[in-house]
Amino acid sequence: MKELHLSKVYQLLEPGPVVLLTTSRKGQHNVMAMSWHMMVEFEPPLVACVVSSADHSFAALRTTRECVIAIPALKLAPQVVQVGNSSGRDIDKFQTFDLTPVPAQLVNSPLIAECFANLECKVAETRLVNKYNLFILEVLKAWIDPAQKNPKTIHHCGYGTFIVDGETIKLKSKMR
Amino acid sequence: MKELHLSKVYQLLEPGPVVLLTTSRKGQHNVMAMSWHMMVEFEPPLVACVVSSADHSFAALRTTRECVIAIPALKLAPQVVQVGNSSGRDIDKFQTFDLTPVPAQLVNSPLIAECFANLECKVAETRLVNKYNLFILEVLKAWIDPAQKNPKTIHHCGYGTFIVDGETIKLKSKMR
Repeated sequence: MKELHLSKVYQLLEPGPVVLLTTSRKGQHNVMAMSWHMMVEFEPPLVACVVSSADHSFAALRTTRECVIAIPALKLAPQVVQVGNSSGRDIDKFQTFDLTPVPAQLVNSPLIAECFANLECKVAETRLVNKYNLFILEVLKAWIDPAQKNPKTIHHCGYGTFIVDGETIKLKSKMR
Repeated sequence: MKELHLSKVYQLLEPGPVVLLTTSRKGQHNVMAMSWHMMVEFEPPLVACVVSSADHSFAALRTTRECVIAIPALKLAPQVVQVGNSSGRDIDKFQTFDLTPVPAQLVNSPLIAECFANLECKVAETRLVNKYNLFILEVLKAWIDPAQKNPKTIHHCGYGTFIVDGETIKLKSKMR
């Protein structure tokens, strides 16, 4: 994993890929699939996300105030669905689905070796947690895997349907 | 435009497309491009979004508490970029970029005839507006254009680079 400058993090999340979110609590790692996230600020990067209070990850995120957002490419789609279909209450998802936890540098939540990008995050804002399960995270450190060239991400459309990244187009834009 | 059941709105926004956001204030329509949005609740659909206080749309959204999220397909990409590169302070973007405003049913902000989906929204939550420019919207009414079959959306990756929707894959998922 190679460090990525924090100013480039938004380019990973803005297109709306399905991501994995890892937490660690009482020595137990967990991982969930997540599509409800968005950028809130460029730098330092702030990311809003919704983690349902029904998810096993919710208590870990709220208590430890730490997580890792790991971005899977297309080849991990089967594992992403399995992660989304199961709960850390019942199984160790890392072991069951052959995902490799890697120690992060600034948080206790693990990176995922198989993902092409990993973002170490701390919770920055909790005012909308009780009503909407909405957290704002600050990205503290970002990593990319240089061995995964031009990874295609997947975008969830409900009930196991995903759109895969297609062609890239360039238009004259002043928009960051 | 045909009405779309509110329970299906998340399938439009969850994949992370670039959208247009229209507002109307003092008889003046405006439109901006937006990639920082996410679903917050399925039904009634709640959508969080970030509208910078530097955007001309910000004051209209905060004051009128209404907007329309219009979703453009690939063919509108050149206009989307032009909308994002200009300000409603200087020009009438509907007129300049050949976008057709259509009266909405429940809000004063216009639908956009050329977009394949239009969501009439009211502001539901403003606690994070001052600090993060983050609004939570409730979708009141949703419309789709049945004439636009399988529209491909675009996803912004920064500086005028967009990923176009590619193939659709189906995997056995229990995830809504």
